[in-house]
Amino acid sequence: MSIRIGILGYGNLGRGVEKAVMANADQELTAVFTRRDPAGVKTVSGCPVLSIEELPGKKDEIDVLILCGGSATDLPEQTPEYASMFNVVDSFDTHARIPEHFDAVDKAAKRGLRIGVISCGWDPGMFSLSRIYAHSVLPNGRDYTFWGRGVSQGHSDAIRRIDGVVDARQYTVPVEEALEQVRSGKNPELTVRQKHTRECYVVAQEGADLARIEKEIKEMPNYFADYDTTVQFISAQEMKEKHSELPHGGSVIYSGQTGERKHVIEYSLKLDSNPEFTGSVIAAVARAAYRMNAEGQTGARTMFDIAPKYLSPETDEWLRAHYL
Amino acid sequence: MSIRIGILGYGNLGRGVEKAVMANADQELTAVFTRRDPAGVKTVSGCPVLSIEELPGKKDEIDVLILCGGSATDLPEQTPEYASMFNVVDSFDTHARIPEHFDAVDKAAKRGLRIGVISCGWDPGMFSLSRIYAHSVLPNGRDYTFWGRGVSQGHSDAIRRIDGVVDARQYTVPVEEALEQVRSGKNPELTVRQKHTRECYVVAQEGADLARIEKEIKEMPNYFADYDTTVQFISAQEMKEKHSELPHGGSVIYSGQTGERKHVIEYSLKLDSNPEFTGSVIAAVARAAYRMNAEGQTGARTMFDIAPKYLSPETDEWLRAHYL
Repeated sequence: MSIRIGILGYGNLGRGVEKAVMANADQELTAVFTRRDPAGVKTVSGCPVLSIEELPGKKDEIDVLILCGGSATDLPEQTPEYASMFNVVDSFDTHARIPEHFDAVDKAAKRGLRIGVISCGWDPGMFSLSRIYAHSVLPNGRDYTFWGRGVSQGHSDAIRRIDGVVDARQYTVPVEEALEQVRSGKNPELTVRQKHTRECYVVAQEGADLARIEKEIKEMPNYFADYDTTVQFISAQEMKEKHSELPHGGSVIYSGQTGERKHVIEYSLKLDSNPEFTGSVIAAVARAAYRMNAEGQTGARTMFDIAPKYLSPETDEWLRAHYL
Repeated sequence: MSIRIGILGYGNLGRGVEKAVMANADQELTAVFTRRDPAGVKTVSGCPVLSIEELPGKKDEIDVLILCGGSATDLPEQTPEYASMFNVVDSFDTHARIPEHFDAVDKAAKRGLRIGVISCGWDPGMFSLSRIYAHSVLPNGRDYTFWGRGVSQGHSDAIRRIDGVVDARQYTVPVEEALEQVRSGKNPELTVRQKHTRECYVVAQEGADLARIEKEIKEMPNYFADYDTTVQFISAQEMKEKHSELPHGGSVIYSGQTGERKHVIEYSLKLDSNPEFTGSVIAAVARAAYRMNAEGQTGARTMFDIAPKYLSPETDEWLRAHYL
């Protein structure tokens, strides 16, 4: 019997999850739920689109509900709310608020006898796993995370909010020299500026003051001021042709020691589509959430709490024979 | 309270485990056990050395027994034998016999109400984890494993058994071109010969027939015949100066797709000391074995069955706040 999946929120991530569920032989899509008018939403898979108001009535038709909203305002409300009715998985990534989010989801999920897995994807997610495994094995060590080359949607949005900007795409780029230093096991101290540069492609309104836009981008606190940032103005046509994909990736490099001897562990991702890969991680976690709840487990979880076998569609015997 | 560790077998791996346990603040070494005369064995940590016969009497002084013998003859007997008395961890790596070894350990550990974790280290071990995570996330994909550059102790031993050979060291070297093809996501079909080469450094007896030795190496079935192998004869002095370390490493590269879009996941290790890194993985698994058994779990496990948090010395709260 298939694991029945519901998706709440149908943006880039929602579509990425949908594609992943379609690729998983043991999962099927019950419906996509949206706050918009369902009549205006068409799914890739052809599955039904329903209003978010119908969710509570679908308790018996959904094994795991995947929450594809944003971390700023959607997930802090939605994940606890629905964790009391469904097994849920989210990709909450506001680092500083993870402890309180975990607690809220834990209470709701325990009340509803469900499992709620938060902060799934690749960072937080696969990169977090890479960090915990490395640190557990080599306590005497240090981790470095590099992101990119890839599109940061948060930084792209920040540029789009500037007056006179029609569209923007921001690429985060790791500094090759810093990467090499870390890979060599030198454990360098690196500033924010030494680790990444930021490349911005901007479509401006006709007649806009380009110098002012460039200055506003480069001086934007937190987002750009601490980085070497380049800004290039391009046409809407060029934006569409060259920058319509959402590639991303990066590396977690852990450099540790046993006495005098050094060991370098690197986990790296090169992703043609950030939302599709993130959606694929989330779909695998949904399988784990379903199984853990079927065993009687309840409450909040992160990927740290999930034994790898729960993520896999294969049997324990097959995994030992083929992947060990 | 510290986790009390016993080590059975005190070769390269035993010393690697000892060093790892010494580096772990939450673990302490009870004793090293050996089949040799304990009087002739001196430990790095200064911990007691006892005869293997004393092991059954130490049930109450050891929380986890780490088995550091070989996979050919030691572990198939020792792991099931001691799994009925202790929580145990081994690094069993005879791939074809993993299912029967797992079953034997499972029966014994369940009888003794203990946990027995088999096949820990980096391959099997960390590389296996990399494979299962990647395949779980991207079912439509393919994994490649490259080993090296590093010393293969099995291949070095095979050369040492040749008549006229005093000492030998064999390095397994991945073929750079094959690595690049795989990293690019091309999913090439690669023969054994296209993936790795083998470099042999040999100290021969004075007057030995070098041409015969080289021929015997290069034609040895399974070990060398299917590879491009180079043999270099060196002095005992040069062997000692340049080849006395046991570095190793490698990469698991998984190339998968979501529809048209490609994603490449790579996990790589560069290890100055194979036995010290392997020992560090095993020490982390010993922590997990202890905790899982303390929760009431019994039976055989592999790293696939262990949630990452069990491996870490940190609390769940700390991990969520710092590593997620």
